[in-house]
Amino acid sequence: MSYNTFGHLFRVTTWGESHGPAIGCVIDGCPPRIPLSEADIQPFLDRRKPGQSAFTTQRREADAVKILSGVFEGQTTGTPISLLIENTDQRSRDYGDIAQTYRPGHADLTYDLKYGIRDYRGGGRSSARETACRVAAGAVARKVLGEGVQIRAALVQLGPHDIDRTRWDWAEVERNPFFSPDAGVVEAWEAYLHDIRKAGSSIGAVIEVVAEGVPAGLGAPIYGKLDADIAAGLMSINAVKGVEIGDGFAAASLTGPENADALYSKDGQITFGANHAGGILGGISSGQPVVARFAVKPTSSMLTPVDSITRTGQEKQVITKGRHDPCVGIRAVPVGEAMMACVLADHLLRHRGQMGG
Amino acid sequence: MSYNTFGHLFRVTTWGESHGPAIGCVIDGCPPRIPLSEADIQPFLDRRKPGQSAFTTQRREADAVKILSGVFEGQTTGTPISLLIENTDQRSRDYGDIAQTYRPGHADLTYDLKYGIRDYRGGGRSSARETACRVAAGAVARKVLGEGVQIRAALVQLGPHDIDRTRWDWAEVERNPFFSPDAGVVEAWEAYLHDIRKAGSSIGAVIEVVAEGVPAGLGAPIYGKLDADIAAGLMSINAVKGVEIGDGFAAASLTGPENADALYSKDGQITFGANHAGGILGGISSGQPVVARFAVKPTSSMLTPVDSITRTGQEKQVITKGRHDPCVGIRAVPVGEAMMACVLADHLLRHRGQMGG
Amino acid sequence: MSYNTFGHLFRVTTWGESHGPAIGCVIDGCPPRIPLSEADIQPFLDRRKPGQSAFTTQRREADAVKILSGVFEGQTTGTPISLLIENTDQRSRDYGDIAQTYRPGHADLTYDLKYGIRDYRGGGRSSARETACRVAAGAVARKVLGEGVQIRAALVQLGPHDIDRTRWDWAEVERNPFFSPDAGVVEAWEAYLHDIRKAGSSIGAVIEVVAEGVPAGLGAPIYGKLDADIAAGLMSINAVKGVEIGDGFAAASLTGPENADALYSKDGQITFGANHAGGILGGISSGQPVVARFAVKPTSSMLTPVDSITRTGQEKQVITKGRHDPCVGIRAVPVGEAMMACVLADHLLRHRGQMGG
Amino acid sequence: MSYNTFGHLFRVTTWGESHGPAIGCVIDGCPPRIPLSEADIQPFLDRRKPGQSAFTTQRREADAVKILSGVFEGQTTGTPISLLIENTDQRSRDYGDIAQTYRPGHADLTYDLKYGIRDYRGGGRSSARETACRVAAGAVARKVLGEGVQIRAALVQLGPHDIDRTRWDWAEVERNPFFSPDAGVVEAWEAYLHDIRKAGSSIGAVIEVVAEGVPAGLGAPIYGKLDADIAAGLMSINAVKGVEIGDGFAAASLTGPENADALYSKDGQITFGANHAGGILGGISSGQPVVARFAVKPTSSMLTPVDSITRTGQEKQVITKGRHDPCVGIRAVPVGEAMMACVLADHLLRHRGQMGG
Repeated sequence: MSYNTFGHLFRVTTWGESHGPAIGCVIDGCPPRIPLSEADIQPFLDRRKPGQSAFTTQRREADAVKILSGVFEGQTTGTPISLLIENTDQRSRDYGDIAQTYRPGHADLTYDLKYGIRDYRGGGRSSARETACRVAAGAVARKVLGEGVQIRAALVQLGPHDIDRTRWDWAEVERNPFFSPDAGVVEAWEAYLHDIRKAGSSIGAVIEVVAEGVPAGLGAPIYGKLDADIAAGLMSINAVKGVEIGDGFAAASLTGPENADALYSKDGQITFGANHAGGILGGISSGQPVVARFAVKPTSSMLTPVDSITRTGQEKQVITKGRHDPCVGIRAVPVGEAMMACVLADHLLRHRGQMGG
Repeated sequence: MSYNTFGHLFRVTTWGESHGPAIGCVIDGCPPRIPLSEADIQPFLDRRKPGQSAFTTQRREADAVKILSGVFEGQTTGTPISLLIENTDQRSRDYGDIAQTYRPGHADLTYDLKYGIRDYRGGGRSSARETACRVAAGAVARKVLGEGVQIRAALVQLGPHDIDRTRWDWAEVERNPFFSPDAGVVEAWEAYLHDIRKAGSSIGAVIEVVAEGVPAGLGAPIYGKLDADIAAGLMSINAVKGVEIGDGFAAASLTGPENADALYSKDGQITFGANHAGGILGGISSGQPVVARFAVKPTSSMLTPVDSITRTGQEKQVITKGRHDPCVGIRAVPVGEAMMACVLADHLLRHRGQMGG
Repeated sequence: MSYNTFGHLFRVTTWGESHGPAIGCVIDGCPPRIPLSEADIQPFLDRRKPGQSAFTTQRREADAVKILSGVFEGQTTGTPISLLIENTDQRSRDYGDIAQTYRPGHADLTYDLKYGIRDYRGGGRSSARETACRVAAGAVARKVLGEGVQIRAALVQLGPHDIDRTRWDWAEVERNPFFSPDAGVVEAWEAYLHDIRKAGSSIGAVIEVVAEGVPAGLGAPIYGKLDADIAAGLMSINAVKGVEIGDGFAAASLTGPENADALYSKDGQITFGANHAGGILGGISSGQPVVARFAVKPTSSMLTPVDSITRTGQEKQVITKGRHDPCVGIRAVPVGEAMMACVLADHLLRHRGQMGG
Repeated sequence: MSYNTFGHLFRVTTWGESHGPAIGCVIDGCPPRIPLSEADIQPFLDRRKPGQSAFTTQRREADAVKILSGVFEGQTTGTPISLLIENTDQRSRDYGDIAQTYRPGHADLTYDLKYGIRDYRGGGRSSARETACRVAAGAVARKVLGEGVQIRAALVQLGPHDIDRTRWDWAEVERNPFFSPDAGVVEAWEAYLHDIRKAGSSIGAVIEVVAEGVPAGLGAPIYGKLDADIAAGLMSINAVKGVEIGDGFAAASLTGPENADALYSKDGQITFGANHAGGILGGISSGQPVVARFAVKPTSSMLTPVDSITRTGQEKQVITKGRHDPCVGIRAVPVGEAMMACVLADHLLRHRGQMGG
């Protein structure tokens, strides 16, 4: 129900603004006796951290997470886990332009329309900085899911440029600054994004998230479907405009026989001829890999001037100086993984609530 | 939280199976003193009703709705509105095949994997019949939103065949059996779908939902975003595999300047140069039309045989006789409208809860 | 969140007015494969049914429950269970007085103050008739809890008259029209309540609910405490004004040593020297019997005239003719059991969601 | 749903353990543009603070609250308000006894039974220290309610000793260390509690909370009743064993005419002859003062030895050294006010969500 809480049994509440003293989250409902320390969370934050390549914002944040509660002698206790990340590089400067003029395509406008007040410093609550909390929560969610569930994501499209899926290599994802699973596109993407940045522009992207080892049976009809919650979770990430499961929009063009994932039986186990469904049937996981994709629009913070208006209704072109990602989709890769982890952890607990076991 | 409840302040709980005595829903949280009778709901049910053209299932259901509570002397009272629709055409027949063999791509399998029991008659709970309740609830949601908000949907793609958007005419939607806004494609679609059906096959589709007159300010960060709830609502519809807002996946290929919806001021009102964002910025409505699309896969109930297995793990091809829609996407058009209406009504109440007014 | 839904994982949504066509409830989240038929529910409804003695309202309702969904071949399927009870004895008559004049102490006034509209027929939504749905849901909750959990309630005080606890006999509860566990008070209570009724008056009561066999560990800090949810559940019953757990208000007068339930160990099992705590410590069940009591005020529907006002603000004395219980506390006994069952079933599912098992 | 979140639209999530680095809460859903600073919250924390008299624990905590988010230029922004209170006086010492042996009547046992792990330092999560967060949240809730709503509480019973209600003086509450509204009992209470403490014992208490100026119409049938949520809120406070509204348990002994709060009309306003109902009818506020009472049991942390067992099941007497309140009910007075404020603020938002205005 809450505006800033995600999940039902594994619940994450995030708080904090881009340029306030800190951001953080409270994870409630985590099972007890799970080994947990900052060292389990930090690596995931480090992957999302800004300033790691020429293609992300040059803001320098240590993003060092502190556990303030819910862990005792190295184990979760079943009580709320409070995580805190201090903001250390809120560069002091004049916010005059952003404060007074709306960036077209940005939440600046709608926060003001709704609340009549807005913390404009660095984007305030609408800053992508909030996603650090999702990543931290996702690290805890992975612990709940256990090592049998593996969640990975990759950038599969940068602007108009797709990867070649035949060259997919998960190991490559960690080797290039784009989280691309296709080594073959990296050079071209570097050149392309270099040009975008140089032009003071920005560009969109598509991310694919794959969860393997998800047990069958997670999710439930009709409004607690696993894919509905994945859709909400991914769509809630900043700048996301589309979500699909399995074949997604491409499934609209398929015939029934083309789309059917044939079933077989092997050594008493169900096997599948394909995975058009992306691991979810009727809102319930089938045991196949859960596959989701989401589209990220280009950031509206850029050096290119755009027609806009001020808070008082004066027409005025706006450009956004400061430190911004030319493609916010890149750093959305670990965020997508985190949201998938949170959805799955929540559904795991919900499932065993109703079903036991 | 609940599995079969949608919404937070305007809440809809649906129940019922395809071949049980009835289906229905309970709408809780509806504001009082809204004029309401069965006559306000029935027309929407009639639009979704099966058996109205050669392109939908030949099951004959009156889908006559009864209001059992929550309305007094023609007005809502603020207490729960219970709606009931009797099932009248659950043709008595042998369910042997469906009962014992899973349709690939269908919820048959996962219901069994999760619950270990499944009402297989006509698809039970996973039947698209449940969507009648959504449509009924959507009719009430429209009353909550008032006449200033207009919600319409149309089929924009049938299988691989798009409409021509330059010919878009909302009036046309009610004139053809596809809910197509483009009269020019109707003849070709008829021929195409005729062939699909004759081949014992099925096909997917894409539906676009547009809500005009939505007040600015609905939705809230971070996990109560309007688009996140629309995504969940549409993804929860049977057979939906993708959801997008505004330009959606196409936004991934746009540059920042291309994607920016320039802002202007006219007579003290904000105007926009475009609506790439689909009426939502930062999860909050901007006052522009809210635009969403969703992709429906082809139904897995068809006459074409597919490799499958039985409940006991024997491999066996399955074909689904009986009455089925060759393109379930068609009847999803009024369902998409209904889910949009429910999401908006819920967010309207949530917004004024926090903001007053 | 919802106004008419109770519980989180085992969720009950009730609907219906006293003199509408029917009342009912939807139970969502029930585990699958539990044997269930109307015959499992009806006996509990029969215990609550009006017209069974001279001391309850003479309204004659069969209170025959129908299962409309969620059960297949005699077992729950894990999908929503819709229960319907038709209203058959809504005596047609002139509601003029109740319609226009508020009964002091009754919800008549506040429904109008809140909603500006009110179904006054028989009390509408605020009628105790709604509690039949709670009892029906409670019967299902008992099935979820299993035979190891025994939930019983008794009337321990009728107006100013207490039972003698040394004579407590559960078997006696089913033998007298008061659900008194003390046979010794029955005769006196009959005479007393006879006089109350003859005087056109009404009287309050106190009910005690005891749940035995509740596993240790149900409930959770800080706002999901088992006793907090029991308190909400019992306080939500019509006319209830107080709830206590274990020694309750009497605990305020105890010293620490008096109140401490000493702990012992016997054959590897924890045993307790007393149960002042009523089976709950820190909001979590201890394995001891869970003991709660609730106070029911006298009904405001009575023949004695009271100063009041009309809807238009005219002062006018009101008397309530028609059929009413002189002590609504009596029929609250099975309702109290039902709420306890619903709370425990919900917490059982929530507990195993977080903890597994 | 969540274990550590309270409320639906005005939501408070608390976290933290007694001897961890800090405790805190996140308040979500607060309306924007409400002036707020630490100075609005601190006075309420100071009232609850330990170490202020001989009758509360000698732990010394500054309880200095910091606002980490959700406030910009002195006003709430509508985004989550994160409040943090550092723990500064977690005296380093040997926890051996408490760590290994359960205090009878304490959550020690049930936390271990549920979670299999427990932060025993100072009571961990079950410490009354958590209530500081409730008080902080209550201060914000008061701002939401506005100055028209006045919420005050007082200690009306200390152990077996009642106040004399004819001497009730709200001003007196702030003048004595018991929050007693009756100056006449203070001396006797001092002597009594001095003896209790000297004996190494503890004692219970009853607190009354009165909210004046509550608008009519808050609360809703059937499971969202205002009194049900007040009951849950108060029962969730540490050591509370009973809650009542208005006449509460005494109403059980009243006849209908005695209990009826007669209605009159004066200058177009409704007036009442009495307030037996405690301001709530049918779960909805009537406009009269909302009156609730709750009973607090004696703390189980005391110097008197009690029979108990160790974690490994050995029988062993336990005494609790360290710093404890001989009557935890005293400091529960501001906590009771805070919970009342939170419930009312939440219901105010929920009410205007459904009703507008």
